[in-house]
Amino acid sequence: MIDIEALFRITYGLFIVSSGDKNHGNGFISNTVFQVTAEPPQFVVCCNKNNFTAGIIEKSRAFSVSILEKDTTPEILGRFGFQSGRDFNKMEGMEIRYGQTGIPVVLNNSIAFLECTLVSTVDVGSHLMFVGELVQAALLDNTKEPLTYLYYRQVKKGSAPKNAPTYIDKSKLEASKAAGTYKKYKCTSCGYIYDEEKENVKFSELPESWICPACGSEKSDFIEV
Amino acid sequence: MIDIEALFRITYGLFIVSSGDKNHGNGFISNTVFQVTAEPPQFVVCCNKNNFTAGIIEKSRAFSVSILEKDTTPEILGRFGFQSGRDFNKMEGMEIRYGQTGIPVVLNNSIAFLECTLVSTVDVGSHLMFVGELVQAALLDNTKEPLTYLYYRQVKKGSAPKNAPTYIDKSKLEASKAAGTYKKYKCTSCGYIYDEEKENVKFSELPESWICPACGSEKSDFIEV
Repeated sequence: MIDIEALFRITYGLFIVSSGDKNHGNGFISNTVFQVTAEPPQFVVCCNKNNFTAGIIEKSRAFSVSILEKDTTPEILGRFGFQSGRDFNKMEGMEIRYGQTGIPVVLNNSIAFLECTLVSTVDVGSHLMFVGELVQAALLDNTKEPLTYLYYRQVKKGSAPKNAPTYIDKSKLEASKAAGTYKKYKCTSCGYIYDEEKENVKFSELPESWICPACGSEKSDFIEV
Repeated sequence: MIDIEALFRITYGLFIVSSGDKNHGNGFISNTVFQVTAEPPQFVVCCNKNNFTAGIIEKSRAFSVSILEKDTTPEILGRFGFQSGRDFNKMEGMEIRYGQTGIPVVLNNSIAFLECTLVSTVDVGSHLMFVGELVQAALLDNTKEPLTYLYYRQVKKGSAPKNAPTYIDKSKLEASKAAGTYKKYKCTSCGYIYDEEKENVKFSELPESWICPACGSEKSDFIEV
């Protein structure tokens, strides 16, 4: 017996894990960043093998972790969490600092960052665990709280990307249908809510080319809520 | 340049990780429990090689994770976080359920628990990462929030045990001395504050055999705050 609700009681933060260099950098949203040893300070990040960033970390032998603030914008979550660096340059237009190893560190909505050199890679099936040794850690903003996965789910109504270890297949979700004429539709990628009453346009009347304004997911990724 | 404050912006929960059987069970407080794959659901716990529980997990080939509630008592944090199962039976007198694999699950102050069978063990130096596949997950209390490491540090004034990946040597701490006649002393093991004004006994007058009422650490483990 596995009650999925129990799994949601595990506390996680939310981070942008980046790698590459000035010409070819990429990053993704991760909730699995954690310290595994104190001396030397080593950190693990968990990454789906399909993530574009996975290959870049293996090649660059380093990664950075941007610790996101509580009020991180849907644009940043959508850009790094629900779109692929195979399709466009995620780093373009972002506020970037380059670390001691030359890898990019995303500063947008970040309150602190870490930079690690890759020590080893552990294959755990669908995902890789990258073990890195800390070379740099800096606090960027002492006044803001970090974004937690719980806050993202409960307050920002976000869900996990398909490649996340905590992803839940939407076919397994019970779609509780709303009463009344107007309906609401939720982006299963980023959690954005399309409210027919607010928008005054029926969801079914939106063109098939319409995309989620928060994360760019397709219309077919929405479910009625 | 490594700013330790940056590391404290990483969000963690707090858990009791247990293993063993009805006769020989043990558990320890961990902040490093996280899901690494969704299909199948696999979880990692990080454990210092010196932890008594490490050998028990390797022998039992299974572990449980109790997700602690926000208002977890200092007694539970002290018992499982700052004392060793080599010295006494931590499970005695606790509220225990036995899992499908026969391992103990601590229910005190727990809002949910997981049970995993050991899949692999990864050596990362001072610590081992145990990768386990989920066999059971249950929600015990839907009304309570999980305890986070941030809340434990900021509100409960707790610090990390010596074996934790996030431990910081107390010699590195700046002891900011309080003004006035009465002083306060903090247990560097569990964060318990001894307040001379409240207790009406000078800390220096306490016998050397005096121990921390919260976690049982020795008098020499206290620092002036």
